[in-house]
Amino acid sequence: MRIAVIGVGLIGGSIGLAAKENLPGVTVSGYDPQAGVASKAVEIGAIDEAAGSVAAAAKDAEACFVACPVRDLPDVVAQTLAAAPAECVVTDVGSTKKLVVDSVPAESAARFVGGHPLAGAETSGVENARADLFQGATWYLTPTRESSGVLYERLHRVLAGIGARCVAIDAEAHDRLMATVSHLPHVLANVLVAQAAQTLAEEDERLPATGPSFRDVTRVAGSNPALWSDIFLANREAIAAEVDEHVRRLEDVSAALKSGDRGAVDSWIAEARANRQRLLEPQLDGGPVSEIRAIVPNRPGIVAEVALALGKAGVNIVDIALHPAPDWRSGAVTLWIAGAADADRALKIVADLGYSVSRIESGGPQDEG
Amino acid sequence: MRIAVIGVGLIGGSIGLAAKENLPGVTVSGYDPQAGVASKAVEIGAIDEAAGSVAAAAKDAEACFVACPVRDLPDVVAQTLAAAPAECVVTDVGSTKKLVVDSVPAESAARFVGGHPLAGAETSGVENARADLFQGATWYLTPTRESSGVLYERLHRVLAGIGARCVAIDAEAHDRLMATVSHLPHVLANVLVAQAAQTLAEEDERLPATGPSFRDVTRVAGSNPALWSDIFLANREAIAAEVDEHVRRLEDVSAALKSGDRGAVDSWIAEARANRQRLLEPQLDGGPVSEIRAIVPNRPGIVAEVALALGKAGVNIVDIALHPAPDWRSGAVTLWIAGAADADRALKIVADLGYSVSRIESGGPQDEG
Repeated sequence: MRIAVIGVGLIGGSIGLAAKENLPGVTVSGYDPQAGVASKAVEIGAIDEAAGSVAAAAKDAEACFVACPVRDLPDVVAQTLAAAPAECVVTDVGSTKKLVVDSVPAESAARFVGGHPLAGAETSGVENARADLFQGATWYLTPTRESSGVLYERLHRVLAGIGARCVAIDAEAHDRLMATVSHLPHVLANVLVAQAAQTLAEEDERLPATGPSFRDVTRVAGSNPALWSDIFLANREAIAAEVDEHVRRLEDVSAALKSGDRGAVDSWIAEARANRQRLLEPQLDGGPVSEIRAIVPNRPGIVAEVALALGKAGVNIVDIALHPAPDWRSGAVTLWIAGAADADRALKIVADLGYSVSRIESGGPQDEG
Repeated sequence: MRIAVIGVGLIGGSIGLAAKENLPGVTVSGYDPQAGVASKAVEIGAIDEAAGSVAAAAKDAEACFVACPVRDLPDVVAQTLAAAPAECVVTDVGSTKKLVVDSVPAESAARFVGGHPLAGAETSGVENARADLFQGATWYLTPTRESSGVLYERLHRVLAGIGARCVAIDAEAHDRLMATVSHLPHVLANVLVAQAAQTLAEEDERLPATGPSFRDVTRVAGSNPALWSDIFLANREAIAAEVDEHVRRLEDVSAALKSGDRGAVDSWIAEARANRQRLLEPQLDGGPVSEIRAIVPNRPGIVAEVALALGKAGVNIVDIALHPAPDWRSGAVTLWIAGAADADRALKIVADLGYSVSRIESGGPQDEG
């Protein structure tokens, strides 16, 4: 089998590595517009052949993966469809889908299936490519009524072969989902940080050393501008719709606050609590997740000590958050532990280390007032 | 000196412990409406005398700290002012200030100074009280034009004595600040989680295993309902104003997205990036903070190994975030390290452990697309 990778970065390179490791007899050709990238990919074994153009890479391919920046997708997908053989499936790995799916001309619609692997966000560049990047990862596919069944089945088989869990989804539903759970959080982070900057400037105050909520919520503010400008614009209709829905909900909250409606506020918080538990728990490693919090001195080695002790006992930490106290001499370590029995053991282990530790009622940390 | 603590929970108990440890010759009396709490506080040495009423606790006191739930503050502060000697300063520790400050009758205004220590969010209950809870902590004080200079000075001296850094601030400015950097993030988390639950239900989809943004932003959703209902209602005017301002800003974002204005989106992200750096960096431990990210196997002991190696080298980790990959076999560990030299050392140390590690351009993590 012959696979082409158009754009050999982290995702393209990992597709090549994974294909070569998992698919017997595969040959991977690759093209990257940036000089030297394709040959580097050959060197590290991510692809077999460095092609000099999209057409050269796509020649004789049975599956083409377009892994270029989101803004270039319609163009590069069109080039690839034009160059690839008639019996070749063409897909992409962009994080928004409707724009590229809609850009495919009717005569090529049978040969194109949009895709979006949920993997590889942590780093970039072919030098970070890994053969196991997609093991167990959700890989959204957005076939349409025009998609060829034979070609969809081939793509699915290749992706399953490299370890991905394919999930078919309508392109519009995909984009709405991403708008809600990924793009909107970024919007809120960006807006909150701007608003806080203005309030602080107007009040001539510094950011108070409050608890973790501000840092948590704004952690992604301003992240990777080039990538995120593309995503915001490529998915702008769905994101704008979610922003508008968020505005509508905030207006309800504002009204409840202005009228001092304790019942509305109470049930709103209770609902948030229930929703957060329901949404997040199945994502975490098996059983229900307990949250425990230890107060520890804020010095090098403490997190290590705690994690090491839990590790030795076989307790895996699902999530961790450190909240230094304002004096920087102590801090709280919050640990999310999967499984009630492991949580009980974790409590005992941390207490035995001599730290004050308690279980936090589920539904979110207490956080600062 | 005689100090009274009205409400002997984590904060009240810690005030007692800290006073007894740091203020020579002090006697601390305490009252708590919950049966057995005051006597438990005596047992663990947080107070000297368990009083049977607010009046009994306040008798002969030179400083009274009201540390009850926010919703009870106006009542309990009024009781305390009525019971305390004419030359006693009365203060509170509530996380919103205007409501309680405004509730004080004109004839007692000289004797009351509102207060809010930024400490103690991690746990609750007198059993978690610590003598060093306020060491280095910001303690907001909201004196008014009516406040007695002598009594303000006495309060300041007591607080400085227990290690707090007193910051005088107008009650309204305090509440606006808290509304922006603490209460609004909670509002957004609650609203986002409700919105995501609805989208997922409508699309009949599960929460995708995306990157950390959704979990980060919603981490505080639904936290501690009793505490947060009180805070939202006590500070409802300021919070509603910030929610309205947030709505205004979101409407701008929505308009920019709808018009596909790349310039507006670009500069909006760049501004968020600059603001986040500017706001958060001074809060972190000295020098500029670098962000480094390592890809590690997702098994017990790994975080320990990394943290231990950095700890041994004297590199202190300012913040840490784990992002398990969808396959749960690997994950990214993001570390925030203060000081450029320490960040360089951290990169080398983690690389020497055999993990792929890279420096993330500052301004926030890359996060998922």
